[in-house]
Amino acid sequence: MKSVGRHLVLELWGCRNLNSTGVVESALLEIVDALKLTLLAIQVHPFSPIGVTGVAIVSESHVVIHTWPELGYAAVDIFTCGDQRNPEDAVPVLRQYFAPERIQVMEMARGLIDAPTPRGEAAERVLVPNDLGSARG
Amino acid sequence: MKSVGRHLVLELWGCRNLNSTGVVESALLEIVDALKLTLLAIQVHPFSPIGVTGVAIVSESHVVIHTWPELGYAAVDIFTCGDQRNPEDAVPVLRQYFAPERIQVMEMARGLIDAPTPRGEAAERVLVPNDLGSARG
Repeated sequence: MKSVGRHLVLELWGCRNLNSTGVVESALLEIVDALKLTLLAIQVHPFSPIGVTGVAIVSESHVVIHTWPELGYAAVDIFTCGDQRNPEDAVPVLRQYFAPERIQVMEMARGLIDAPTPRGEAAERVLVPNDLGSARG
Repeated sequence: MKSVGRHLVLELWGCRNLNSTGVVESALLEIVDALKLTLLAIQVHPFSPIGVTGVAIVSESHVVIHTWPELGYAAVDIFTCGDQRNPEDAVPVLRQYFAPERIQVMEMARGLIDAPTPRGEAAERVLVPNDLGSARG
């Protein structure tokens, strides 16, 4: 079944370097590079007393890292559209920057476009609302 | 089991207004308001020929909307930490702005902190790496 994108959900435990905005920014940029994504914007915010949120908005969707240094935990989301990208290529980068003792990974197919038709065709048909033209911003 | 946050993954199909940066921005701001989140930054990017990505970075994590107007599809992620927020409160806002014909929702518990101990205690223990102090950015 065809999908719009792949969304990798990663749970990183026993991590180091979780309270550094510089490390989170570097990790985001290296993931963008490793996956050959097109960076549109990057934002990294430190929290008080500890913790960092970093978001890379890319043409192919987004990469997000939230850290809880007090737990040794980071929540990472990598959502890529387009067949060329493999979001799993981010895992070595995350290992390099945060040295997690344990990683849990779940992958979701986002935007499953259509089930095969009764005729067995791999259907490419999609619903397009009639009023899309007037909806353009 | 205690978790760091709740992550709602929403698939919206048969939507309207998907190509408007203004609508996506308004929807993000109203979700932030409905969930009583603290907005840190908002970014909305139009794509060529069509499509919009909008990201609200909040103290409590993030809200993301990616739209594919040609499919009538929007991928929405709402990740909130803290017990007070109910990410499901975003659903009426999404219905109001995009009038989806169909919504699929999945909820993930992010950062499941600990399983009950063999003694049956609801454990609050967490691993804290020794070198956290030096990891601050």
